[in-house]
Amino acid sequence: MRATTLHAAGDIRLSEVPDPVISAPTDAIVKVVAGCICGSDLWPYRGENPITAGDTIGHECVGVVEEVGAEVSSFRPGDFVIVPFCHADNTCPHCSVGMHSVCDRLGMTKSGQAEYALVTQAEGSLVKTDGAPDAAMIPSLLALTDVMSTGWHAAVAARVREGGTAVVVGDGAVGLCGVLAASVMGAEKVILMSRHEPRQAIGRDFGATHVIAERGKEGAALVKEITGGVGADAVLECVGTDASMGTAFAVARPGSTVGFVGVPHGVDLPVRRMFQKNVGLAGGMAPVRAYLPELLDLVTSGRIEPGKVFDSTMALADVAEGYRAMDERRAIKVLLQP
Amino acid sequence: MRATTLHAAGDIRLSEVPDPVISAPTDAIVKVVAGCICGSDLWPYRGENPITAGDTIGHECVGVVEEVGAEVSSFRPGDFVIVPFCHADNTCPHCSVGMHSVCDRLGMTKSGQAEYALVTQAEGSLVKTDGAPDAAMIPSLLALTDVMSTGWHAAVAARVREGGTAVVVGDGAVGLCGVLAASVMGAEKVILMSRHEPRQAIGRDFGATHVIAERGKEGAALVKEITGGVGADAVLECVGTDASMGTAFAVARPGSTVGFVGVPHGVDLPVRRMFQKNVGLAGGMAPVRAYLPELLDLVTSGRIEPGKVFDSTMALADVAEGYRAMDERRAIKVLLQP
Repeated sequence: MRATTLHAAGDIRLSEVPDPVISAPTDAIVKVVAGCICGSDLWPYRGENPITAGDTIGHECVGVVEEVGAEVSSFRPGDFVIVPFCHADNTCPHCSVGMHSVCDRLGMTKSGQAEYALVTQAEGSLVKTDGAPDAAMIPSLLALTDVMSTGWHAAVAARVREGGTAVVVGDGAVGLCGVLAASVMGAEKVILMSRHEPRQAIGRDFGATHVIAERGKEGAALVKEITGGVGADAVLECVGTDASMGTAFAVARPGSTVGFVGVPHGVDLPVRRMFQKNVGLAGGMAPVRAYLPELLDLVTSGRIEPGKVFDSTMALADVAEGYRAMDERRAIKVLLQP
Repeated sequence: MRATTLHAAGDIRLSEVPDPVISAPTDAIVKVVAGCICGSDLWPYRGENPITAGDTIGHECVGVVEEVGAEVSSFRPGDFVIVPFCHADNTCPHCSVGMHSVCDRLGMTKSGQAEYALVTQAEGSLVKTDGAPDAAMIPSLLALTDVMSTGWHAAVAARVREGGTAVVVGDGAVGLCGVLAASVMGAEKVILMSRHEPRQAIGRDFGATHVIAERGKEGAALVKEITGGVGADAVLECVGTDASMGTAFAVARPGSTVGFVGVPHGVDLPVRRMFQKNVGLAGGMAPVRAYLPELLDLVTSGRIEPGKVFDSTMALADVAEGYRAMDERRAIKVLLQP
């Protein structure tokens, strides 16, 4: 099949690789209808994460079941399915408390930017739609595989509450989905920290009541002003750098929680400040499967349209240009069609 | 008055210092009936925190109101009062959400190991008992000023829940009170990590169902065994060192929260592990005043007797020996009688 492979920093290609095959009775193979590029794919693309030359890349996709293993009983070829980026059995002690991203049998989608993807633990991971979805809904369904579920997780971890204030640090696709999540959860003020006009626009569309372009101390001072001098009731940290984490703690009110979902890179947590201000930290890799039923309802009922984070659609053949566009921040998030 | 003063590492004395005076209408002066030495007093005593030679020390006391400022209307001379170690107005935006330890008008008891203590924000801070308490109850009331409220805060921050498992890291007086808190909150298994027999005994008396003497990886493996392989639902970190924090995260199940109340010293938080395991951190300086009504009820009704953490009672004149005893771990916690 044709699949995206990474060979060195900046060297991303569409290559011919062996088709995935069922090797365990819990496996399924999904023919990809739509895949996409994640902000976290840029870490290895930029050489900031280790690279194994020639490995396939891409962990987000939706598509149609092609083949299932012997123990997969709820899905059959032809079903349209949402593939959580992390695969889980949905039965282990961690899954049973909603922590699917720490499943005892955790797997990951490894060829989401390709023609086919292997899903380990298909029975516990996949969620199917009620019939084949409209083409217009596919971007939003694709967003559920990672970015929207991750933004949702940030809001859950930060304990966004109805009538409260929420600050979102990071205007990438995850941050924008965090805005959408906080808004759906009923936050009265949703403050997006963003200096990029197109991202601000999507943020407002997703429910941001305030947009702050300033950074650092100046940005924090503006949050204080908007929140009556006390800081935000909930903070969603959707970047993963030391600077963004610093901003998150600077705007969090005493007693609140920073929900973090950006893979931390070079983060040194301000433990003394956390102690003095009683500001907590919670989050991590999103347990996508746990949120899918609720989020799928929100999408199919038309209440949310997280697919709007895709501001660019390309043929899979153009994947290298897709990476360049995201790396240079010309695109927020690129959808790929095999 | 006679008050405990610190002059250099290890040089603690009972000195003659000026009596505290009312200087603001929100002040009150309390004649100390019982004070005590806190584990955190050992940091400056050991020279690990900066010292201003001659400063008074001691932030825990109960006693009788001696004099009040013009704006203190709920207390009058003769009232027996519990003095939270951190003083708060009980009206600011932080107090209004239970974060009294980050009050806009935060104050601290500075001469709890003395004859008199000044309480700033007396109206918002003090809680009086219903008449003069029995002498036998005084240690438990004294424990509410810091150590029991702090253990309680660890349990609240860690989100101890009925029927769950809780691990307490640290067998100091705060850790033991954390055991008591987790037990009162209904945790089914309360696991105390302790290698000191007298502390283990108090821990069991306070409700510990399991005691683990092993440390590090061995201790963590035992917790895993007791918790069915998954780790604890809630972890109370009651020490504040890097090693104890490491143990806390090692035994926390995915999705749980480490509640921390030990002032962090040299702690480097394992942010990658926190992310991968979705283990949160919450806590800080305890908002004592927020918990006092509930805890006072528990004490006066006889449901809890946190005063048992005082395994040594001394005259104020013997304060230097009290510090030595705690420093050498010959005493868990020393009560001082002026």
